[in-house]
Amino acid sequence: METIRRLKGYLEPESITIIGVSTRTGTGTFNIFEVMLNSNYIGRIYPVNPKGTDILGHKTYKSVAEVPEITDLAIISIPREAVLGAVKDCVTKGIKSVVIITQGFADADAAGQTMQQELLHAIRGTGTSIIGPNTLGVVNLRNDYYTSFVNFIKQANDTAVVCQSGIFIAASLDLTAGLGLCIDVGNACDIGFNDALEYFAQDAQTRVVNMHMEGIHGGCRFMEIAALASRRKPLLCYKTGRSEAGARAAGSHSGSLAGEDHVFGAVFRQCGVIRVQDVEDMHYLNKTFLTYPGMSGRRIGVVTISGGAGIATIDACSDQGLEVADLTNETLKILNDVSPDWMNVNNPADIWPAGMSRGYLPIVELSLETVLSDPNVDACICINGGYQDPEDNVLDASDIIKEVARRHMDKPLAVWVAGPSREKYRPLLESSGNVVVYPSPDRAARSLAMLCQYHTEIKNRSVTSPETFTDINTPDVAVIIKQHLDAGPVTVNEPVLEMLSLYGIPAITSRKAANPGEALAAASATGYPVAMKIVSPQISHKSDVGGVCLNIGDAGKLAVAYEDMLQTVKTNAPGASIEGVLIQPYRPGGVEVILGVKQDPEFGPVLVFGLGGIYAELFRDVSFRIAPLSRREALDMIRETKVYKLLSGFRGAAVGDIDAVADCLLRLSQLACDHPEIKELDINPLLVSPQGVLAVDARAVLAS
Amino acid sequence: METIRRLKGYLEPESITIIGVSTRTGTGTFNIFEVMLNSNYIGRIYPVNPKGTDILGHKTYKSVAEVPEITDLAIISIPREAVLGAVKDCVTKGIKSVVIITQGFADADAAGQTMQQELLHAIRGTGTSIIGPNTLGVVNLRNDYYTSFVNFIKQANDTAVVCQSGIFIAASLDLTAGLGLCIDVGNACDIGFNDALEYFAQDAQTRVVNMHMEGIHGGCRFMEIAALASRRKPLLCYKTGRSEAGARAAGSHSGSLAGEDHVFGAVFRQCGVIRVQDVEDMHYLNKTFLTYPGMSGRRIGVVTISGGAGIATIDACSDQGLEVADLTNETLKILNDVSPDWMNVNNPADIWPAGMSRGYLPIVELSLETVLSDPNVDACICINGGYQDPEDNVLDASDIIKEVARRHMDKPLAVWVAGPSREKYRPLLESSGNVVVYPSPDRAARSLAMLCQYHTEIKNRSVTSPETFTDINTPDVAVIIKQHLDAGPVTVNEPVLEMLSLYGIPAITSRKAANPGEALAAASATGYPVAMKIVSPQISHKSDVGGVCLNIGDAGKLAVAYEDMLQTVKTNAPGASIEGVLIQPYRPGGVEVILGVKQDPEFGPVLVFGLGGIYAELFRDVSFRIAPLSRREALDMIRETKVYKLLSGFRGAAVGDIDAVADCLLRLSQLACDHPEIKELDINPLLVSPQGVLAVDARAVLAS
Repeated sequence: METIRRLKGYLEPESITIIGVSTRTGTGTFNIFEVMLNSNYIGRIYPVNPKGTDILGHKTYKSVAEVPEITDLAIISIPREAVLGAVKDCVTKGIKSVVIITQGFADADAAGQTMQQELLHAIRGTGTSIIGPNTLGVVNLRNDYYTSFVNFIKQANDTAVVCQSGIFIAASLDLTAGLGLCIDVGNACDIGFNDALEYFAQDAQTRVVNMHMEGIHGGCRFMEIAALASRRKPLLCYKTGRSEAGARAAGSHSGSLAGEDHVFGAVFRQCGVIRVQDVEDMHYLNKTFLTYPGMSGRRIGVVTISGGAGIATIDACSDQGLEVADLTNETLKILNDVSPDWMNVNNPADIWPAGMSRGYLPIVELSLETVLSDPNVDACICINGGYQDPEDNVLDASDIIKEVARRHMDKPLAVWVAGPSREKYRPLLESSGNVVVYPSPDRAARSLAMLCQYHTEIKNRSVTSPETFTDINTPDVAVIIKQHLDAGPVTVNEPVLEMLSLYGIPAITSRKAANPGEALAAASATGYPVAMKIVSPQISHKSDVGGVCLNIGDAGKLAVAYEDMLQTVKTNAPGASIEGVLIQPYRPGGVEVILGVKQDPEFGPVLVFGLGGIYAELFRDVSFRIAPLSRREALDMIRETKVYKLLSGFRGAAVGDIDAVADCLLRLSQLACDHPEIKELDINPLLVSPQGVLAVDARAVLAS
Repeated sequence: METIRRLKGYLEPESITIIGVSTRTGTGTFNIFEVMLNSNYIGRIYPVNPKGTDILGHKTYKSVAEVPEITDLAIISIPREAVLGAVKDCVTKGIKSVVIITQGFADADAAGQTMQQELLHAIRGTGTSIIGPNTLGVVNLRNDYYTSFVNFIKQANDTAVVCQSGIFIAASLDLTAGLGLCIDVGNACDIGFNDALEYFAQDAQTRVVNMHMEGIHGGCRFMEIAALASRRKPLLCYKTGRSEAGARAAGSHSGSLAGEDHVFGAVFRQCGVIRVQDVEDMHYLNKTFLTYPGMSGRRIGVVTISGGAGIATIDACSDQGLEVADLTNETLKILNDVSPDWMNVNNPADIWPAGMSRGYLPIVELSLETVLSDPNVDACICINGGYQDPEDNVLDASDIIKEVARRHMDKPLAVWVAGPSREKYRPLLESSGNVVVYPSPDRAARSLAMLCQYHTEIKNRSVTSPETFTDINTPDVAVIIKQHLDAGPVTVNEPVLEMLSLYGIPAITSRKAANPGEALAAASATGYPVAMKIVSPQISHKSDVGGVCLNIGDAGKLAVAYEDMLQTVKTNAPGASIEGVLIQPYRPGGVEVILGVKQDPEFGPVLVFGLGGIYAELFRDVSFRIAPLSRREALDMIRETKVYKLLSGFRGAAVGDIDAVADCLLRLSQLACDHPEIKELDINPLLVSPQGVLAVDARAVLAS
């Protein structure tokens, strides 16, 4: 609630001090005071300028101290060297909310980074907070209030935006189809991404929340807020800095660490955040969510003026995982009764021949009404022609389409207007707020698919709790870790299998042997056939250097294999010091999977599951989740991969024990959460057979 | 040349007979004659109507016979039952070119299909040809001539379109950004897709060819024409009926067989056809190719008004395989000299701070000029704000951007105008024809990537010839095929390895054994270790039913394995009749790949290469090409897959003999071309090791 109260001061201030108002006014001067005066903001504004000259006929103040009241908000827009002083003035005055527009802090050089630290230091313990620096600030179009010095075309809607770039304010009508509330967190030195998200989540009027994210601090809090908020309203995220090159650029733009993109993918999936592909997607997803109250299934009816366009629409639906509705016989009869005898209307319903013989407009109405009333249809895509401007077009069905849509608010009626006059039909069709006009069938299908996913999967998903086990031995694992950590960060192999065992993950027994004699003894104790693996602190991918030999049937073969392996490894890894070999029982068969975990600086342990063995890196058939995991999440993770098909009996193969794999994931999750010194841990392979699972090889990176 | 001459009659007619002109005129009547009268078409038009009433003050004729000249073209738009008579009238009159608008032929019921056959019959040997039926006909906007009864907004450009739906005429300004020539082939009963393509390929004024394809007849001719034409101008194809549901719908729309989409993918790749993703893509690719004369590399410089937008653009470039240009020190110095001291400008070049301190417009000019002059830059994406309408925007840099673009026509300057006023900036920026305005960085990057691909890979690609071998034994393969075909279509296993051997593909020797005694004898003749595989005409996926046992080390193990296998197979495939087993030498190691071929009804033998073994169906890591193949195409096919990484020594594995694999593909291509009775043939696996390749198992479907 503290966050909410704080942000109210930014979003609904009754009075504002503007520090750094230029005496230059008029177009091109980007004078915040002037831009604000020209809005309908009804609060009190106090411009501060050291010269004290009146600006635009308004009294200015030479200093913050001179301002006759303690305003709710201060906006600072002065050279970076002077910002610290202004912040201190605000603190002294008792102003609680400060927006710092100025660039050149953590987004810039080392000096800027130090200056940003000083700002934080200046407000510590004072009750004053900061948005920015390096921001366009805050927008509340419900009150026609904004701190942006760039004037822009404003249209209020029920979206909220948290962003790290002013373009999401300035171009908001393009990017999010309008704007309600916006916080540009900029460098986010104090008020951060999560604060804004928390505010928008609880704001009743906000129906869609958009996030432009370059990076984030406080991953765990983000996940908590997002997981709750996504059940109340759609959260759309446009994550930039996805690519390696983009991540580098993000670092210099807002000082953000863009993080690893697959981690964000896992976070978004886990929290019900819908990932936006690009700014066009963002525009149409906002319109879609603002327009259609719901969608209860994936079955699409297509009503089209053009047969060819209907086929393109079916393709688009298939691409997006939507289904072509199986229209009822009643529907088909109605559609066919009005069509020429030679025609067999189905889905897509090509209404042109019927329209030409019976009149286009009544046929549009009949067809849409029939298809939307069909119990097998969850939504309809209507393709209409925008070949001519509405005033020249006797086929303009805008009013009919709107009216049918109004009668079926439970089923989205999406319109693709094909033709150069689309933008002229848009206001006619969208005026009642029941219909969205899309620029292609693909955009319509993608938008409906996301709408459906939100309403059928995300919104009402059940809350699951992380699963924890009690049959584990935490202290002994701590001891093992401590032993190996004494000499600083280290990569370990053999002790990992023991650690896994202590957490209830079945692991193969290994016997270490430093010479051929010990190897033979170990093998006879283990029982043939055995597998032999090289032991060297420098070698972590053993099979790459010839350090793995499987299915050794007897002592004679073992002796030969031992000599061969040492020879091969010495050739392939000449620098490695070889401590000997491991002897393990050889277990043929079973599907090889990989299980792993890696600490992410923001989100903590990130679990990975996927295809193991030599194909693991080739196909990257993997899924990720953030620990701790619920059992449902663990099973989702498994089902997301293709190797799941192998485990579930692909082409006659024996079925693997999937519950046992989920168990391992959950135990690994717990192991990583309990022991943050485990920076990375991979089990590769974990053998999965109908009888259960077995960790055959594993490695971990430990650090304090 | 015959095709060219014929199509000229459709595209440049000097006189037209219109059969079926309604007496009803005015908006909503879709009167072709009226639409044509309102155009600037300068030829002679003769309306035919059996009533003979004058229409719009023009004399009409009661019959084709009455028309006072033999027109170049006739357009028929009357009920389907009357079309045959009208076609015969045209033939009698000596009219060579007929467009049939009427629907209800192969696109409809059985009666319609018969009627379409009758139309063909009526013109056979007469010198008269038909476009349609079920078409909007022909467009030549250079002469303001079109046979469409739908009036539409026309804008001439240098594109040509061959399509199977009138929407590509009616919505052309939207879909292809204008139109030059268009042929809607409709049901394509006579003049087909390939004829139109051939015409557009040789037409000098046509600079971009668009294809809307639901299906095609004459796949080989298509490939010949496309392979040549794509070296002269870009060919863009929007293939619909891609999905299973879409393919079904295409069948009832234009009577097209949509075919298998991966086959079209292979065809397009092989012939240099650029695949269009959706209609938005089509619009921007046309603009891109019409605007930018070339692009010589993938290195992109980004000049941006917004740092955040710049990062999004870098992501978009990375997604599309474009590179972030490494700007020279000279460029960086110029950009940094005008920026605040604290800033470190790079690529993307955020010019806002410089623009604010030095004046935005001169900074735009300096930055664009500098970046486009950089030898490390092949194209530039400029992000400009459309936050306000141009008249309200002192930052409107349209004139500067256009002028800089004009000075660097060798390097595309693409513009993303971010903001709601984008469409108002579009005419300002695009007026000189040197710049395209895109709605997102993703659209800009995708368009530039295709432009680059065309100019660096497709346009100047060398011509390669299919490779053929002489060390093959065609007659013996023919004998084997004949033996097995005696009893009708059949699936065979063992003879396939022999056929492969006869075509020079190394294949494992197999010995068949009907009982344990024969198996032991075969194994001792082969030499241990051996592999044993079940032989049953009902079992083609042997390993699925436990019918494969590898690495059998001695006679004792073979005896046990034999009993086990028969037991297991009888349990798993109770209906199968078991003829015995095959004994083969066991060759461990090597990468398992699959090679195959399948006859496509339109394109002939389609070759497949990819990962083999149990993962083949799971990962579908495969590439396709149409036979016959050149060596370069075979190598391309291999390199397209992920298994190529394994073959080329992924993670320390031994390198496979890739040339030998290419050899097998070429020999398999030749085998399939020589013996069309081979409907399908799979080699799975072909073992690939540094020492060469070996076909271990294979199956084929034979039919006459």
